[in-house]
Amino acid sequence: MNAAIIGLGLIGGSFARDLRETGFASRIIGVENNPAHAKLALNLGLVDEIMPLAQAARSADLVLVAIPVTATALVLKDILDAIGSAAVVTDMGSTKHGICLTVAGHPRRGRFVASHPIAGTENSGPIAALPGLFRGKLGILCDTEKSDPDAVQLVRAMYDAVGMRLLTMDSDNHDRHVAYVSHISHITSFVLATTVLEIEKNTTTIFELAGSGFESTVRLAKSSPDMWTPIFMQNAPFVCEALDAYIRNITRFKEMIERGSGKELHTTMEQANEIRRVLSGMNGNGTTQGSTIVNKERAE
Amino acid sequence: MNAAIIGLGLIGGSFARDLRETGFASRIIGVENNPAHAKLALNLGLVDEIMPLAQAARSADLVLVAIPVTATALVLKDILDAIGSAAVVTDMGSTKHGICLTVAGHPRRGRFVASHPIAGTENSGPIAALPGLFRGKLGILCDTEKSDPDAVQLVRAMYDAVGMRLLTMDSDNHDRHVAYVSHISHITSFVLATTVLEIEKNTTTIFELAGSGFESTVRLAKSSPDMWTPIFMQNAPFVCEALDAYIRNITRFKEMIERGSGKELHTTMEQANEIRRVLSGMNGNGTTQGSTIVNKERAE
Repeated sequence: MNAAIIGLGLIGGSFARDLRETGFASRIIGVENNPAHAKLALNLGLVDEIMPLAQAARSADLVLVAIPVTATALVLKDILDAIGSAAVVTDMGSTKHGICLTVAGHPRRGRFVASHPIAGTENSGPIAALPGLFRGKLGILCDTEKSDPDAVQLVRAMYDAVGMRLLTMDSDNHDRHVAYVSHISHITSFVLATTVLEIEKNTTTIFELAGSGFESTVRLAKSSPDMWTPIFMQNAPFVCEALDAYIRNITRFKEMIERGSGKELHTTMEQANEIRRVLSGMNGNGTTQGSTIVNKERAE
Repeated sequence: MNAAIIGLGLIGGSFARDLRETGFASRIIGVENNPAHAKLALNLGLVDEIMPLAQAARSADLVLVAIPVTATALVLKDILDAIGSAAVVTDMGSTKHGICLTVAGHPRRGRFVASHPIAGTENSGPIAALPGLFRGKLGILCDTEKSDPDAVQLVRAMYDAVGMRLLTMDSDNHDRHVAYVSHISHITSFVLATTVLEIEKNTTTIFELAGSGFESTVRLAKSSPDMWTPIFMQNAPFVCEALDAYIRNITRFKEMIERGSGKELHTTMEQANEIRRVLSGMNGNGTTQGSTIVNKERAE
């Protein structure tokens, strides 16, 4: 199969590696605006050739759009206009509702499958592409009832090839849940970096005093502004709702410290400790969580 | 040498492992209020025996106090009263000013060396003790001019034995810098866990959607409330100053999203990206930072 990958960064480049390695794609066409990245992707063997967008779309059986979400929304209609009648298009964006809206009512809407692989690192560009990045991670397919069954099947097979588990949910729920779990943690990390760089003016002190805890908490602040600016803008309502709750909670935390309410602080942190059990896959009664599907998600 | 370790948790237990392994201590006496932890520490071979505090202090050449900072402040005078004339006491607390105040003017103040090993994990108890936890990490000695030179020398040798680099600074500066770099990142992580558990009521959804980014950002929220409550209380002025800046910055970030100021958001995140260079040990002009000592730190 011919796959075209639009955007040869962390996600697109990692898919390029795995789709070739697993034999899912026999030929990989890259589309990349940044000439240095295009050259690097060729040199690294991520893609077989670089083409302009429309030509790549016409030549591919499967088109993966792995560019910032605003850019995805801009080019998706053009891609659907250009592809062959049996070809399939999927995107990798971290927001889904706005992207789905841009192709709502498009005559070829059925050839598009909205998806989101929840995987990544804080690095970017073709150099950040990692083999096996997606293995064991979760992918989400959205609004699959609006896609043709064979298109959904192909995208499922692609995620399966790179070793991802899959959930389906509607795009609005997707955006709410990822705002609550993923987007907010990127913002708290960006703001931590901003704040520490601001108040600890001597960066050598930060370097010297940073323990592994600080490094872990601030890791996401190294992420790409090109990728995250459009995500926060597109998902503003849910992101701001999450931030309101966060700001309320951190203000309360500060007030407990100011008041010297040790007991309240202790209780608050004990409750936060619950995240250990949640992330280990144990639910409240100590049993392992099943692969329960996200609430309000719909069966295909 | 006989070492007594007060508190056999993550830090005390890890020192027990390394001081024995390196031959720095030939006999290790443990003091531990929690009977289950005391038994576990014996079973794990962390300590040779368990003794009451005063007896342990009398029997040791070096006493390490590795308990929460409020508890340290409570027992430090008793320990100084009990030790032999040549014995040395050091603590491991993440705040230093309050602890130093409690022994200011004590006739044996010179036998105490205030210290802080910047190392740890989010786990606690003797089971969390790790060999090699301190290797390559930074330790800080505070107000060393108030300690006898031979006492400072012994504590230096101890940190050297476990592989730590050392800085010296005054306790007030220490508390300010660790509030700005370490304490604030624990709070942002605790509050992230609190917020996500609050707004994403279905914990299975958190489990399913949590990527490695969320896990990294929220890791410190698993830390011990017993340890962190007293730290935040003792270091309240500097911690609240850092939190004020953080709350101001996250509120600004939210307002940029609400206003749809993509350009401002992008610039803010680009500036936050600077943390990558700072943590990699590169300064502004791209050269590697020397082992410059923290500002306002004083040479011994």
